[in-house]
Amino acid sequence: MSLLVPTGGVVPCQPWPHRLVHGAWRVGLEDLIAERPYFVVAERRFADQVGQRNVIVDGGESGKTLNHAEDVVVALIQAGLTRSHVVVALGGGATTDLVGFAAATALRGVDWVGVPTTVLAAVDASIGGKTGVNLALGKNLIGAFHQPLGVVVDSDFWLSLPEVEWRSAAAEIFKAGLLRPELMERLESCSTAREAANYAVTAAELKLDVVAADPDEHNLRLALNLGHTLAHAIETQGNGRVQHGEAVAIGLAAVLRLNHPQATHHISLLDAWGLPTELPSWADAAGLVDLMRRDKKSNTDGLRVVLPGANGSCHLVDRFDPERLIEFAV
Amino acid sequence: MSLLVPTGGVVPCQPWPHRLVHGAWRVGLEDLIAERPYFVVAERRFADQVGQRNVIVDGGESGKTLNHAEDVVVALIQAGLTRSHVVVALGGGATTDLVGFAAATALRGVDWVGVPTTVLAAVDASIGGKTGVNLALGKNLIGAFHQPLGVVVDSDFWLSLPEVEWRSAAAEIFKAGLLRPELMERLESCSTAREAANYAVTAAELKLDVVAADPDEHNLRLALNLGHTLAHAIETQGNGRVQHGEAVAIGLAAVLRLNHPQATHHISLLDAWGLPTELPSWADAAGLVDLMRRDKKSNTDGLRVVLPGANGSCHLVDRFDPERLIEFAV
Repeated sequence: MSLLVPTGGVVPCQPWPHRLVHGAWRVGLEDLIAERPYFVVAERRFADQVGQRNVIVDGGESGKTLNHAEDVVVALIQAGLTRSHVVVALGGGATTDLVGFAAATALRGVDWVGVPTTVLAAVDASIGGKTGVNLALGKNLIGAFHQPLGVVVDSDFWLSLPEVEWRSAAAEIFKAGLLRPELMERLESCSTAREAANYAVTAAELKLDVVAADPDEHNLRLALNLGHTLAHAIETQGNGRVQHGEAVAIGLAAVLRLNHPQATHHISLLDAWGLPTELPSWADAAGLVDLMRRDKKSNTDGLRVVLPGANGSCHLVDRFDPERLIEFAV
Repeated sequence: MSLLVPTGGVVPCQPWPHRLVHGAWRVGLEDLIAERPYFVVAERRFADQVGQRNVIVDGGESGKTLNHAEDVVVALIQAGLTRSHVVVALGGGATTDLVGFAAATALRGVDWVGVPTTVLAAVDASIGGKTGVNLALGKNLIGAFHQPLGVVVDSDFWLSLPEVEWRSAAAEIFKAGLLRPELMERLESCSTAREAANYAVTAAELKLDVVAADPDEHNLRLALNLGHTLAHAIETQGNGRVQHGEAVAIGLAAVLRLNHPQATHHISLLDAWGLPTELPSWADAAGLVDLMRRDKKSNTDGLRVVLPGANGSCHLVDRFDPERLIEFAV
């Protein structure tokens, strides 16, 4: 077991080019890329917001396939993509993952900017340069670390989001709170997920700090996987029946019960925000264990899991028995 | 026009971890990765040389597709791949390109080692970390810069190579000679492609020096594309009718005729080695021009081409008219 985040928090150890910009997305984009030529790859529902020189994708987790990434690259090249262009990914987290991966591999890599249109994507997927697509074997098993030039957070996109999206984001914001006590203090006064989402940008900034300190996930960045080992397995098995944030809430509840002095207190907050904190009835425990054994953070020594400690600290545990996570998830 | 390689040659400007090792491949591999666990992805014809924990691919340029890369990643993950493993690519240049790309994207990137089994792959594809697959639109349009831990050159693999493979390698060795005058001096005394291939390792070392000085192809590395703008277009149009090295010879002859004081002298050497130095009869000039306009090295300003100068120097020219290359290729 090794200490990942000591009490006192994270200090970025290197200059970091990837920027977080707020406001109207066209203005933020110009702020990031100045006069460089660009193509927007947008979800269909935003087709009317982007100009003619763009590519449309369906969005959603089911669209995160290698074939769709190829479609995006082909469309961009046919539209005239060169290495001088910037690719702009406009949509939810599945879209920023897919389009970021297309940008990572088109012409062996072109610059990109994320414009997340959901709170969850603004807090999580669009930040930190993890891009990728899913395999039937599991989520994000093909991908690349490809840092965007920056991310533009335009909260106008959030106005029409359904309740489940706010809940999903609140789970990731809660995770950030476990790593940053002053954020958790504020979250404790939030009685709904939507209130918690007021701290979306604070959570995004925490993620950016952690990633800046360890972009390639050698140590510190692993802390961001708090609750995610079980969550990814649930999502893969759920195959659309559960949102990312809901699965994360179940995963966080499990690691809290397993290890944390304030587990009950913390879990009651997730409950209050309407997030699930136990395995769904359809879950198959043996299947989840198998999926966890294939986790990307595992190595030849077995499963690696992050466990939360007191005051924003957390620990990396090797050779963890995945069955224990299941045991504490109910 | 800007000077890429000044007279006097290339000086690597940074420490470079990617190593070149000679000898029996199993010994060289252990030298590179010590005790780390690994999987070999090998072409079918070498299936008997690799152990049980391996993945077999068909090899060849037609196998360089995104679907095959996905097949390789799936097979590796099913075999138990983790980020601690090393992936070993054993085969010709199409195989090291394909498997290197699978390694670049599996689990968002695992370490890899190239074991080229052809002279051409030893001189060119396996060196320098350019990995990728082809699209119908053109060669290597999806890929990644992913440096191998090293490359093992085991010349026992070369014993049974057909004549066309030696010729193909000789074209790339000749290109290295245009950048390193002391190599060209020696090549001038070679009367056959097979003799020229004695300088394969010298050419590989030159490539490694250039890549070490500019791994992401911002400037100096572009010099290695000498002759390749037209060559890639010919290969794409030829669709299997021409080998990479043959297309490179035609491309080199074109830039020599266009620009070089010793063009006739140099081209006679390519002729002597049995390499083509003019466009094949099936070539469609207008189609080649279109393909060149989509070249990855192009930008919004137009086509970028590398032209050879005297004494190992070369120049980068922007806004080049691709029709001029066609004009000088016949």
